[in-house]
Amino acid sequence: MRKIEIIGLRDFPEVKTGTDLAALIVQHCERTGVEILERDVLVIASKIVSKAEGRIVDLRQVKPSEKALNIASQTGIDPRLVELVLREGEILKVKKELIITLTRHGLVCGNAGIDYSNVDGTGTRVALLPEDPDKTAREVRARIRELTGKNVAVLIVDTCGRPFRRGAVNFVIGLSGLNPFRSYVGKRDRYGYTMTRTAICIADEIAAAAELVMGQGDESIPVAIIRGIEYEICEECTAKDIVMPREQWLFG
Amino acid sequence: MRKIEIIGLRDFPEVKTGTDLAALIVQHCERTGVEILERDVLVIASKIVSKAEGRIVDLRQVKPSEKALNIASQTGIDPRLVELVLREGEILKVKKELIITLTRHGLVCGNAGIDYSNVDGTGTRVALLPEDPDKTAREVRARIRELTGKNVAVLIVDTCGRPFRRGAVNFVIGLSGLNPFRSYVGKRDRYGYTMTRTAICIADEIAAAAELVMGQGDESIPVAIIRGIEYEICEECTAKDIVMPREQWLFG
Repeated sequence: MRKIEIIGLRDFPEVKTGTDLAALIVQHCERTGVEILERDVLVIASKIVSKAEGRIVDLRQVKPSEKALNIASQTGIDPRLVELVLREGEILKVKKELIITLTRHGLVCGNAGIDYSNVDGTGTRVALLPEDPDKTAREVRARIRELTGKNVAVLIVDTCGRPFRRGAVNFVIGLSGLNPFRSYVGKRDRYGYTMTRTAICIADEIAAAAELVMGQGDESIPVAIIRGIEYEICEECTAKDIVMPREQWLFG
Repeated sequence: MRKIEIIGLRDFPEVKTGTDLAALIVQHCERTGVEILERDVLVIASKIVSKAEGRIVDLRQVKPSEKALNIASQTGIDPRLVELVLREGEILKVKKELIITLTRHGLVCGNAGIDYSNVDGTGTRVALLPEDPDKTAREVRARIRELTGKNVAVLIVDTCGRPFRRGAVNFVIGLSGLNPFRSYVGKRDRYGYTMTRTAICIADEIAAAAELVMGQGDESIPVAIIRGIEYEICEECTAKDIVMPREQWLFG
C-alpha cells in the first residue's frame, strides 16, 4: 500500500497582527509532539495569514461608495461589505445575496473571499484575503527551513464555491516549494498507452485533503501537515501558475 | 492532533467485465494485510467500474454520424470518439481539441469523460463513464457489508478539468453512505460567531485527497481507503446531490 497522512494541528494558538507564523507553527509542533519532516507540505488557512498581516477590517470604519450602495440594494448584502468587495476584486456576477468576483490572486469566488467567520466573534470585523499569499508562502517556507533545517512546501488556502457543483472546497491561493501539477503527458499508463494530455493539479487536491481535518467550525484547525505525497520540488512555482489566463476561459 | 490516512491499494488485480468489485477489494485487502474498518471511505476510480460493467468500446466498431464528422473537423478530435461523446453527453462548448459536455451524471467535463488511458494500451479502445455510478456505489457498499460486516461509505470518482483553474482534479460521480456536505450553517465558529452560509463538499474533497495516492500513470492505483474522516452517515444521499441544478448556474 501507499500511504499519505493528513495531520491537523489542534489547539493552535491565537494569531495576531505581526505574529511570526512559521515560528508559531514550529513552537506548536514542538509542544504537541508533532515532528516536521523533510518534504512535508504545510497547509495554512488564509484566515490566520490575514490576521498576522493585519488584514482585518472593522465594518464600522468603512464608508460605502455610491456604487456599493447600489449593489447592496440589489443583493441585500451589507453596503460596507460591498465596498470592501469592490476594493478587493473585480465583479463578475451579481445575484441575490451573492457577488461573484475575480480577486487579485486570480480566484473566482464569492465576496472577494471576505469573510466574517473565525475573526473575533463580533460579526463586525471581517478578514480580507492576504495581500500576496505567494510571497507569504515563500517567507514561511524559508523561515521553517531556518528554524528546523527541513525543506517543506507551503500552501496558503481558502474555501470557495465552484461553478456547476454545490458546496465549497479548499483552493490554493499561495504556494511555495512544490510544482502544483503532476503531468502525465508523454508518460505511459499501466498498459503502455502513452498519455497525451492529463495534468493533475495536486496543489488544489492537497488543499482539499487538508480541509478534511481543518474544518470551519468551533474546532477548526488553521494548520495541517500533509505527509507522504510524491511531488516535484519547485523553487519558482507560485499559486498564480494554477490560475487559468482569462483569455482561455470557456465559461465567463 | 487530528489525523486522516489515505491508503492506496497497490498491485490491484485486473478488472474485467463482470468482475465483482467489492469481492475483489475485500480479497485484495486480505491478501495485502489492509483491514477494512467501520466508517472507512472506499474511493474507487470510475475506470475499473467501467471495465466491470463492460463500458469499454472499440473505436473501430463506431460509425460516426454527420454531426460527429462536423464537430470532428472543427476540433481535430477522432470522429468516432466525437460520436461516442454525442451519445454520452450534451455538448456545452466546442474548441480546438476540446469538447466540453454535461454528462448524464451532471458532470461538466471534457469529452463526456471518455478516456483512452488505463484501458488496455491499444489506443483504440476507450472507456465510457459508468452508466449509473450511484447505483454501483450502493451495490458495492451493500456487498462490502455482506462480506466484512463493516459499514463503509463508497465514492466512485473521475478526474475532470475546472473552469478558471488549470489542471484536473478528482470529482465524485457516484456515492453511497455519506452526506456529501458538511454544513456549518447555524453553527458557531471558534469565537462564537454564528455562521450563515458555509457548506463544504467533503465528498469532492475526499475524492481529491484520494487522487493523491491513486495517480494516473503506470503505478496508478484504482482503489483507496480514506480513514479517520468525520462524516454523517446518509442512506439516501447520492452524487446527484452535489450537482448544481442548471437553473442555478451562474456561468454557462
